[in-house]
Amino acid sequence: MFLNCYEAGLAFVERLHAKPKVAARATRSPQDPRRVKIVATACHAPPNVETSVELAPKVGRSEDWILSRTGIRARRIADEPVEVLAARAARAALASGPAPDLILNASTTARQLIPDTSVFIQEQLGFEGIPSFSIHATCLSFLVALNTAASLVVSGAYRRVLVVSAELGSKARNPREPESAALLGDGAAAAIVEATPEDEASELLGWRMTTWPKGAELSELPGGGMRRHPNDPATRPEDNLFTMKGPKLFKMARQRVADLVGDLLDQCGLRIEEIDLVVPHQASGPALEALPKLGFPPERIVNIIADYGNCIAASIPMALAHADQAGRLRRGDRVLLLGTGAGLSIAGALLRW
Amino acid sequence: MFLNCYEAGLAFVERLHAKPKVAARATRSPQDPRRVKIVATACHAPPNVETSVELAPKVGRSEDWILSRTGIRARRIADEPVEVLAARAARAALASGPAPDLILNASTTARQLIPDTSVFIQEQLGFEGIPSFSIHATCLSFLVALNTAASLVVSGAYRRVLVVSAELGSKARNPREPESAALLGDGAAAAIVEATPEDEASELLGWRMTTWPKGAELSELPGGGMRRHPNDPATRPEDNLFTMKGPKLFKMARQRVADLVGDLLDQCGLRIEEIDLVVPHQASGPALEALPKLGFPPERIVNIIADYGNCIAASIPMALAHADQAGRLRRGDRVLLLGTGAGLSIAGALLRW
Repeated sequence: MFLNCYEAGLAFVERLHAKPKVAARATRSPQDPRRVKIVATACHAPPNVETSVELAPKVGRSEDWILSRTGIRARRIADEPVEVLAARAARAALASGPAPDLILNASTTARQLIPDTSVFIQEQLGFEGIPSFSIHATCLSFLVALNTAASLVVSGAYRRVLVVSAELGSKARNPREPESAALLGDGAAAAIVEATPEDEASELLGWRMTTWPKGAELSELPGGGMRRHPNDPATRPEDNLFTMKGPKLFKMARQRVADLVGDLLDQCGLRIEEIDLVVPHQASGPALEALPKLGFPPERIVNIIADYGNCIAASIPMALAHADQAGRLRRGDRVLLLGTGAGLSIAGALLRW
Repeated sequence: MFLNCYEAGLAFVERLHAKPKVAARATRSPQDPRRVKIVATACHAPPNVETSVELAPKVGRSEDWILSRTGIRARRIADEPVEVLAARAARAALASGPAPDLILNASTTARQLIPDTSVFIQEQLGFEGIPSFSIHATCLSFLVALNTAASLVVSGAYRRVLVVSAELGSKARNPREPESAALLGDGAAAAIVEATPEDEASELLGWRMTTWPKGAELSELPGGGMRRHPNDPATRPEDNLFTMKGPKLFKMARQRVADLVGDLLDQCGLRIEEIDLVVPHQASGPALEALPKLGFPPERIVNIIADYGNCIAASIPMALAHADQAGRLRRGDRVLLLGTGAGLSIAGALLRW
């Protein structure tokens, strides 16, 4: 999203100078902050690299075409099942700490329909008895799961939640649609959410999400469910692959993203320059390049798209783990996790790290 | 589950007389109660009835065979998409009240892979901008979503959560496996979760869930994901249908269900006779018949299996809505929602209605 979205920047700047408007019905302020802390992050990138040079002939486009449209030089292609990728990231995040008391799989590409993938992740981790389930909100699954984990933890339902996203996006690529096929890659990442110790300041400062069903057909995988059942002879192979109408999606998203960011900042009583780091969904190169037009300085935006592509729900936690490893997440910093997903959905979580 | 589980009853009774044992690592007590209230329930049963007389020749068994194995006289077969079923139940639950500020789809059989089904439910309801996502924990999806909604509401993240389950279980039936094919049916149900008003007593008294990956292969639908991708020539039609090893599943579940119920009661400081109503997952006739052996009087158990079959995640909220309509849910009563699901997972939510 945000494909060359100069207008989004304009709309946002205009908004910042406009009188505050009444918040939309669907975006009432939650009673944040919630005192939770991401105590660990980790990611796993499958070792097999597919460069855009290698991909080019498979999608009938040149490397330059791919680079100019997506900003992606390479993506990873997994040769392991999705639950194994998930477990690699989860194991690294759990490290030598205690077992989680909830395993929350936050991913789009499942291992199979029944049981849900969280069960197989638990199996890979060698645990048993730990409650497990899956959250699905496409590219926003990790953010939704983070918000969910925050509420589960502050309400006392669980104490140490493993949130893990793992995606085999490469299996959803349609070579006849190079624009989207060149975007998708494989990867996994995890985060551990706990209550903030009394003498620390970490918290979820604010959360905001909106979903706009008018955008459903702009980004979809029509198969994989009951509508175009795999056993239905009318289901075509391309129904089981991802398809996207990028420009229309951008047009629909731009003002709504600007509104959501504005609402979230208003809700938290913060100005855009008070955000220390933005960890966006790695939708595409142009999407990431558009973020500075919303007012975020480029050096404060985590950008790993060139090397990993769009890993669906795993993109945000992969970028978060990269920032963590690079020392870009300092306790006390204000960190904005922001993304768009199929729906069209838009979400932002503002953390005091 | 609980297929003829006399032993489960014995194990449970034994436990009630035994010294309290240390709770398993994975089932630590949450800090309940949480002050939430289910303000409305509703269900939608598709009008098309398939009797077991009609089903019998399709699965190569007699009506008597089906009745004795499943206790199911009829199930509903939908001719509408899953999001339409969901919206029918949701609309009835929302009635003339305000729009929800979160739409939580809690179902197994999705419309399609991307976007998740919650988006299409919102579209059917004529809303826009309301945050929406899906939770998947097979037959326990509604219970998991209820627990999640409770935490989201008490933590202030949302105020009025629509939890809706809709399943097209009939599309997952394998006629070559009559034992499971005779179980599944279609249906939808919804509940609205809000914070409890100050002068009322409704609350989530306790929550407990365990997941045991050793049971994953005992109840599964191997397709519908990346493992047996619909475009993979090696994927067979039966991979996209439900399969179950009933007796093994029962053997694995019996002691674990008894333990979970015991833990939940201990946690809430309640005895089994203090539970006014049990709303169980409608897994099968024998499963429901086994519940009294756990100590619950038959007249306190909601049983709608004969007319609707097993509607996967929709079974518990359908039974809840039926009990509500029949006047069996009185404010102040202690109501236990209890079920097993693929995983193997087991969960219980104890409510003061």
